[in-house]
Amino acid sequence: MIKVALVGTGNVSEHLKRAISKTSEIEVVQVLNSRNEDLSKSLKKIGRQLPDIYIIAVSDDAIPSVSQHFSHTEKLVVHTSGSVPMDALPKQMRKGVIYPLQTLSKAEKVNFKDVPLCIEASQEDDLELLRKLGQAISDQVFEISSEKRKYLHLAAVFVNNFTNHLYSIGAEICKEQQLPFTMLHPLIKETARKIKFLSPEDAQTGPARRNDTGTMQRHMELLNNEKDKTLYRLLSDSIKDSYGKKL
Amino acid sequence: MIKVALVGTGNVSEHLKRAISKTSEIEVVQVLNSRNEDLSKSLKKIGRQLPDIYIIAVSDDAIPSVSQHFSHTEKLVVHTSGSVPMDALPKQMRKGVIYPLQTLSKAEKVNFKDVPLCIEASQEDDLELLRKLGQAISDQVFEISSEKRKYLHLAAVFVNNFTNHLYSIGAEICKEQQLPFTMLHPLIKETARKIKFLSPEDAQTGPARRNDTGTMQRHMELLNNEKDKTLYRLLSDSIKDSYGKKL
Repeated sequence: MIKVALVGTGNVSEHLKRAISKTSEIEVVQVLNSRNEDLSKSLKKIGRQLPDIYIIAVSDDAIPSVSQHFSHTEKLVVHTSGSVPMDALPKQMRKGVIYPLQTLSKAEKVNFKDVPLCIEASQEDDLELLRKLGQAISDQVFEISSEKRKYLHLAAVFVNNFTNHLYSIGAEICKEQQLPFTMLHPLIKETARKIKFLSPEDAQTGPARRNDTGTMQRHMELLNNEKDKTLYRLLSDSIKDSYGKKL
Repeated sequence: MIKVALVGTGNVSEHLKRAISKTSEIEVVQVLNSRNEDLSKSLKKIGRQLPDIYIIAVSDDAIPSVSQHFSHTEKLVVHTSGSVPMDALPKQMRKGVIYPLQTLSKAEKVNFKDVPLCIEASQEDDLELLRKLGQAISDQVFEISSEKRKYLHLAAVFVNNFTNHLYSIGAEICKEQQLPFTMLHPLIKETARKIKFLSPEDAQTGPARRNDTGTMQRHMELLNNEKDKTLYRLLSDSIKDSYGKKL
């Protein structure tokens, strides 16, 4: 049995707790509030049920200060961030990372088995421990260095945060025209589904892909703010560049 | 029984044919090649099985020239384009539009029942005819004017073409780092799924949303070309603007 203490009570902590509760090999022995004063009290009381791993699931900014509380433990301490390197944890500690590459919110159930987990550790046996933990809750466990992980996080910003912003612009256009945004739902779903069997490069369609300057010009005229016009032009240029068609 | 002739043999024609073949109320009596010389020969021979509706499913650019062949018919003639107005069809003709708001490729099966169909016609009884046709093949039929349809098409470019390009950039980052792009598939799927229960505005997360300038700065440094840097900055600025957080 691997004993885990979760530090932090946010989305990632909550999802890890739920996923772990479904396994028989791992147990959450404690969930610690990450506020510094509460944490130092809790750690004094933690006593008997000492965990094998502390998982610090807090915001990126809070990792350095929260992890300081663990600088004297002999146990493995990991964080869960995509963009923070492992070495942001205090020196001379057994340390690692377990980063779930998924957008997680408390209200939403996800099938954690499908969530890719990126693991990293400073020692080989700790990597094994994380692999055991990871494989108990997910079918997708990858050993990823801090260096590579930051690129994954960057790619995730493009396909998740930026994509969602394009959905927002689509929703805004619909709203202004009193059209239901739900009309675009099947298209959004299919666009995402396509990548399973077609590379995004091969799946690319649209006015910019065929260098249809007439349609692009008319679209620019329909947009009623400079911000969206600039985005439209830049994204279209970027598509044209990718396919070797410069205006 | 509504008799349909399809003009053009591309993706939209193929998908309409398949969808119609599953109904008992509609029949495809002919599929005409849209090349001008073939078309004028075929139209001379069409004879007995005269269709009730000609559906011109050709590229936007070809609509004016192809539709000229039908300027003397007394039947209803419609095109299938999102961005071309109904009035691009010859004057004094019974005309209309049936625009499937979905990305369609021949290789891929889609459940046509879920494809939103935007219909428009110059006469009330023709609109009824199109509604009957539409409802036989889809559960989502909307009456949409040419004016509104062009905005829908514009919104579709954002959520489909531009989104797919962001997937391409994500795939490119993965490739350069020798990381499998499949690691991002669950995130892409979940990002698209979320809009069903959360508006994209409420679903927005990421460094730009929280104005995390440190992470944005580090991301910019990881990008190795000016095009992606500019896109990153512009999309981040656009998110910040949307949430009232200007740098």
